[in-house]
Amino acid sequence: MAYLNENYLKLQAGYLFPEIARRVRAFCEKNPERAKRLIRCGIGDVTEPLPAVAVTAMKQAVEELGVRETFRGYGPEQGYEFLRSKIAQSDYRDRGIDISDDEIFVSDGSKCDCGYILDILGHQNKIAITDPVYPVYVDTNVMAGHTGGARNDGSYEGITYLPCTVENDFVAEPPKRQVDVVYLCFPNNPTGAVASREQLTRWVDYAREHDTLILFDAAYEGYISDPAIPHSIYEIPAADECAIEFRSFSKTGGFTGVRCGFTVMPRSVRAKTDAGKSLPIHPLWHRRWSTKSNSVSYPVQRGAEALYSEAGRRQVRALIDHYMGNARILREAAKKARFTVHGGTNAPYIWGETRDGMTSWQTFDWMLNELNVVITPGSGFGSRGEGFFRVSAFNSRKNAEEVGQRLRDAA
Amino acid sequence: MAYLNENYLKLQAGYLFPEIARRVRAFCEKNPERAKRLIRCGIGDVTEPLPAVAVTAMKQAVEELGVRETFRGYGPEQGYEFLRSKIAQSDYRDRGIDISDDEIFVSDGSKCDCGYILDILGHQNKIAITDPVYPVYVDTNVMAGHTGGARNDGSYEGITYLPCTVENDFVAEPPKRQVDVVYLCFPNNPTGAVASREQLTRWVDYAREHDTLILFDAAYEGYISDPAIPHSIYEIPAADECAIEFRSFSKTGGFTGVRCGFTVMPRSVRAKTDAGKSLPIHPLWHRRWSTKSNSVSYPVQRGAEALYSEAGRRQVRALIDHYMGNARILREAAKKARFTVHGGTNAPYIWGETRDGMTSWQTFDWMLNELNVVITPGSGFGSRGEGFFRVSAFNSRKNAEEVGQRLRDAA
Repeated sequence: MAYLNENYLKLQAGYLFPEIARRVRAFCEKNPERAKRLIRCGIGDVTEPLPAVAVTAMKQAVEELGVRETFRGYGPEQGYEFLRSKIAQSDYRDRGIDISDDEIFVSDGSKCDCGYILDILGHQNKIAITDPVYPVYVDTNVMAGHTGGARNDGSYEGITYLPCTVENDFVAEPPKRQVDVVYLCFPNNPTGAVASREQLTRWVDYAREHDTLILFDAAYEGYISDPAIPHSIYEIPAADECAIEFRSFSKTGGFTGVRCGFTVMPRSVRAKTDAGKSLPIHPLWHRRWSTKSNSVSYPVQRGAEALYSEAGRRQVRALIDHYMGNARILREAAKKARFTVHGGTNAPYIWGETRDGMTSWQTFDWMLNELNVVITPGSGFGSRGEGFFRVSAFNSRKNAEEVGQRLRDAA
Repeated sequence: MAYLNENYLKLQAGYLFPEIARRVRAFCEKNPERAKRLIRCGIGDVTEPLPAVAVTAMKQAVEELGVRETFRGYGPEQGYEFLRSKIAQSDYRDRGIDISDDEIFVSDGSKCDCGYILDILGHQNKIAITDPVYPVYVDTNVMAGHTGGARNDGSYEGITYLPCTVENDFVAEPPKRQVDVVYLCFPNNPTGAVASREQLTRWVDYAREHDTLILFDAAYEGYISDPAIPHSIYEIPAADECAIEFRSFSKTGGFTGVRCGFTVMPRSVRAKTDAGKSLPIHPLWHRRWSTKSNSVSYPVQRGAEALYSEAGRRQVRALIDHYMGNARILREAAKKARFTVHGGTNAPYIWGETRDGMTSWQTFDWMLNELNVVITPGSGFGSRGEGFFRVSAFNSRKNAEEVGQRLRDAA
């Protein structure tokens, strides 16, 4: 009989969001009337229509495929040049960051890239992860056999956890001990925290001193409003020697269901063999895509490209402004409801402290049953998330205002 | 410094198709005039427009995303119910095969699935692969560390190769020794061979006797014209205990650039832990998708669904008939040109024997330089592919006829 990957058996019950979905389903079945007033601020999923430029571009691309003269089959496995060059130019070179087109790899989303990246890394790496954290970083490492078993608090043996707390404004400092790979996410999911230029510089200094690879998840960079906050890790000098950056169109262009993101893999990033030989990993990443993928649907790539047009930028800006307007409403209402809140000013997430001694899941259940609002329990993001909850600002204005009202009423 | 995955360093130079692309580019640069008459019968990529039903469905789905009331964000990670149920019903239950909706997992293509499947299997498995073979099966196993180094003939230590030759009509018999996992592909890429019910039954018997997991790639099942040939491994009794099936819309609906396929993962397929405990692997596969993916673009899933409508079936049928018409033309012409040919009757590939003592790559170069036709050298598919070449029938009728003419002229 074939062997299965036993590392999967170490995984804790249900990935966070399926577990939330299960509890919400149970609530709705038991309370069909109250289910009607349910408002979801749990999963970070966009709600507003796709930008018109993307609709037009995607429809046109589909039409092209319907005509022999303009039909396209397999595209380049790393993504179409038209999109790679647009990304490299607009998101990087226009901002003074030297990234070439072939250092951009188009993908079906950041979540996917966070898993794929482990394909090209060795199993010997010592991994560091912030706590709380987007669960995908942890679970993909468990699946790949990079951890021991789970402890009672849900953490895994073999991972170095970097606490993100009220005391450090949810920006972890580099650890004392050496780690080989560290996941950083700014603006942060779930805490909404951002890292200053100084803080990121300390991380890049640490990475260069300790030969650490930084996996930098910038999926929410579009939400930064403070002009002093870096949008890309490559704004820090020499980061292109030690960092890989993930970005997504999910939260800028509303692409959560359309599926497109990208990785920036600088040619100057190196890793080593067991024998200590240092090699660039760009060729491995390129090979991974050639062998394991045929890239992303052509109409989707055209849709992503359209977001970079002048009209596209305006429409993306309007979407982000809309969600950040919600964030303000929710943040103020949560304060009125006697919650201490963080985040929500440079990120679409509000990170609230639970009150009255409740745990995260108790707060989740209370919000579900009393306010009929779905949030995400902080402990789902790691043990340091206990005592917190995440409110997503991805919603219609009407819903955000209604949640605000219910919060104030519950004060 | 982070460790890289050293298994990548075992991989032989360039994946086959990028190497072909390189040679074709060099030819075109050197011979700009002759480049104009170049016809590509190399990579198995469709050429005809997307079926009208898919165009309509995808455009409508994109429009839905442009309107708040019908906007959708994240879909179910395993694929939308509307598509999973259509597949399970039409491709399986309507044909007397008991597959439930939740045993269908929608993906971005068979190539991708062939890599993903290794995520849930253990590294201890003894792997068997036919020779010649679709290179992705081999390369993904090399990347995952399931092999030793490459030998001079391009084969890898640690893989059990099953020769497919003229003598066995390119259908490998089960090996004498036990293997844990075997890749089978029928109709076969590259040989165009199909397996009879009796041959597949021998494989299922072998798998049940030796506790072997069959990875059955049926990406080309739509091209079977002989009514006696099974389309699915599950037409063989008890195959649902020992086989996972991969299918694709690439070659039926012309989706090579649209990207959609699926895996059939029966709940009854089990694998074991190192300690010998047997467990169903459906939950692992489900978890893999929950954690590592957000499924396939919504408009793409609507496009795939449309292929199952009555009009969709007719349009897919017309596409397949078109390509198989090309296959007949190419097959006859190759015979006229004194090539001994195989395949091309239940598959869109013709598998020709080289002539005049030429190697596969010599034949490739000869066809490129003399006929200005791109084919695929058989040795690119494995050492037993030496002495053969693959001609793809994916082309316009005009091109197929022109290649036929050039072949006859060269006779």
